[in-house]
Amino acid sequence: MLVLIAYDVNTETPQGRARLRKVAKQCVNYGQRVQNSLFECILDAAQLKKVQHLLLQLIDPEKDSLRFYYLGNHYQAKVEHFGAKQTYQAEGLLMV
Amino acid sequence: MLVLIAYDVNTETPQGRARLRKVAKQCVNYGQRVQNSLFECILDAAQLKKVQHLLLQLIDPEKDSLRFYYLGNHYQAKVEHFGAKQTYQAEGLLMV
Repeated sequence: MLVLIAYDVNTETPQGRARLRKVAKQCVNYGQRVQNSLFECILDAAQLKKVQHLLLQLIDPEKDSLRFYYLGNHYQAKVEHFGAKQTYQAEGLLMV
Repeated sequence: MLVLIAYDVNTETPQGRARLRKVAKQCVNYGQRVQNSLFECILDAAQLKKVQHLLLQLIDPEKDSLRFYYLGNHYQAKVEHFGAKQTYQAEGLLMV
């Protein structure tokens, strides 16, 4: 199923940028980065559990927000894009 | 239906912050801000069309990414939150 992972972190701090980089690294194993802190991942139930477990170890639960949206298996008509960057090439920006 | 609106804009520039502020202002008429650039809106088909039209006039299509996710009417079990900020109080941060 398509799982949308939205991660809100303060990227004005090096620590925040580092956490976002680590979260992105895990997420792109299963899908693609579509915005700076938004990832579309194709996961089965076991993978979802694993990814959630990994991400919860990476984020700062006092400061960061992590949201999962479950879009099911028939998701093509449930997503619409406008503007720039259909997919996000962030590595260049994120490497510090 | 629940429509998730994800807006990716460079907030390091005053222009980007201003566009985000304008997008947020429209979106919170129909729902809530759940992350810095993520909005959950309850919209019918006519409202969706109206909001899309308004937002497309606000964004810079060369620079910004705007994505819509349609989560239907039975969305309660399709959303999961972890960490801080169940809802986002951004006005204080965004007023410049």
